Amino acid sequence: MEMSDGEAAQNLHPKLVTLEDITAAAERISDLALRTPVIPLPHPLRPDELLHCKAESLQPTGAFKLRGAYNTIAQVLDQARERGIVAQSSGNHARAVAWLAHRLNLRAVIVMPDAAPPTKIAAVRALGAEVEVVPSAQRDIRAKELVEEYGYVHVPPYDDLRIIAGQGTVGLELVEQLPDVDVVLVPISGGGLISGISTAVKALKPGTQVIGVEPELAADAAQSFRERRRITWEPELTYRTVADGLRTPALGVHPWEHVQRYVDDIITVSEDQILAAMRHLAVAGRLVAEPSGAVATAAWMHDLAPSGATVAAVVSGGSVDPALLASVLRAEP
Amino acid sequence: MEMSDGEAAQNLHPKLVTLEDITAAAERISDLALRTPVIPLPHPLRPDELLHCKAESLQPTGAFKLRGAYNTIAQVLDQARERGIVAQSSGNHARAVAWLAHRLNLRAVIVMPDAAPPTKIAAVRALGAEVEVVPSAQRDIRAKELVEEYGYVHVPPYDDLRIIAGQGTVGLELVEQLPDVDVVLVPISGGGLISGISTAVKALKPGTQVIGVEPELAADAAQSFRERRRITWEPELTYRTVADGLRTPALGVHPWEHVQRYVDDIITVSEDQILAAMRHLAVAGRLVAEPSGAVATAAWMHDLAPSGATVAAVVSGGSVDPALLASVLRAEP
Repeated sequence: MEMSDGEAAQNLHPKLVTLEDITAAAERISDLALRTPVIPLPHPLRPDELLHCKAESLQPTGAFKLRGAYNTIAQVLDQARERGIVAQSSGNHARAVAWLAHRLNLRAVIVMPDAAPPTKIAAVRALGAEVEVVPSAQRDIRAKELVEEYGYVHVPPYDDLRIIAGQGTVGLELVEQLPDVDVVLVPISGGGLISGISTAVKALKPGTQVIGVEPELAADAAQSFRERRRITWEPELTYRTVADGLRTPALGVHPWEHVQRYVDDIITVSEDQILAAMRHLAVAGRLVAEPSGAVATAAWMHDLAPSGATVAAVVSGGSVDPALLASVLRAEP
Repeated sequence: MEMSDGEAAQNLHPKLVTLEDITAAAERISDLALRTPVIPLPHPLRPDELLHCKAESLQPTGAFKLRGAYNTIAQVLDQARERGIVAQSSGNHARAVAWLAHRLNLRAVIVMPDAAPPTKIAAVRALGAEVEVVPSAQRDIRAKELVEEYGYVHVPPYDDLRIIAGQGTVGLELVEQLPDVDVVLVPISGGGLISGISTAVKALKPGTQVIGVEPELAADAAQSFRERRRITWEPELTYRTVADGLRTPALGVHPWEHVQRYVDDIITVSEDQILAAMRHLAVAGRLVAEPSGAVATAAWMHDLAPSGATVAAVVSGGSVDPALLASVLRAEP
């Protein structure tokens, strides 16, 4: 079996992102990525208790993925202009890369799995990107083929140090915006987001806990953390969760290195807890979150996370099927 | 008939808020009011065209009303601590005053009309305020009685220079965040918000147009503007609109002075246009807006507003009935 980009890189020089990489990324992405606000959300049962929500759902592409994608593309812009870019993703990374290609006037091919919702495929096409739909299992291979055959510049979704540094800017901003933060809850799947955030937070505030949150039904990262080895779950398992952004079958190789060093725990939430958090974010926080974006809030709402005086959660994205959000809003709390 | 506070003040010394009043307000409210983000929203038909949404829906109380209420209370804090405060409102002003009273440890009585949704009354009670429910027509009178009988400090909803200066901080921030803005669309009802915003915008960027947006079914301000006299609509008329925050029967006296001087036009939107804008804000902007909060976006979406290179809309609030938002999300765009 072929090694992933991450595995190959890892074997050559195991490496961690640094705070300097993240501050450089912050500078690089500042013209197109939003410095997202931190929105206070009252607890549904104890309204004086607040969660501080870092609203990455408000990025112009609807999720934090813009940060890492832009930090990567900005470093290879000349080649990207000449040769075009390729990315594989079923959702928010695809949209971020397509949006950036449109803004920066680059040719982009996005490899999307046939399991991706037609609305997400249409959204990527509407941004002017070329979309290749392939069976889910083949998307990584097909992206690699396109790089080899046509020389496209690859923008990987999470197993890459430039991507991790870009996502880390969320942590940098959070510590600036909320200097007293003592617990940070972060959705986890491939691990790019929590790797960057934990690097920034531990460098700036070593006493702050960084906790990954994952759906019970796609708990490969929680199991990996517990067993101290990187474990893969079959897509048949991970695809059971409503949180379509968190179905990646395993942590990336680079993320695994960061998670082992910097993450304090990984906890899980149920599907019902995720949906209740989406509802609460919309009603009490006026934030539209997708299921993946609501898992960290779900852990806090249901008292599953470590408590702290100042707790923050990353609301990682808001690209939700309107019918799903409607059904969640109709449900009794 | 009794004069309102505004009319009495107006007769004594007709006065306009200044940019200095607004910058002083910005300083005064900065510890509790959020500097709300400006979120780019693509046009539903022409995705390269963006509306810049000033997301006041993300204020901790769900609407811009926090700004004016706090700017007022902060100037009379000693009396308020001693005597308590009173306010009349069916919605977002009530919530802002109750929330501030809770935060600042003040006694608060909120006079709410019997037409207010039970959920809004419950929300105000949950913040610890005493609520008096009265027939809609009597709420102003009852608030005045409470001031006279018990010495409460009155926090009026819009017809007050301190309130206008507080709401003006939205305009101050907007010009800082979006220095090229050339059209600003603002929901209008009692007129406090647009009075403050237009004062700030015209002082800082005299060439920028400021346009009020109102539901067709509660178009007293648009008619007043057209006929150059302050016109009152019966509540039986204004209460037809779904935009429950914009049912005030007439512009306030102080707001009317500001609107005549600084506002370029007042335009109207239909009920369907308002609901379509709520849907688009949620799906494409990840912002939960209440109907009143969506009217300015509705005018832009439906090409009713003056076009400009850089157009901004104030999304004034997000306190929406979850069932209404759900039905809007289920509707086909």
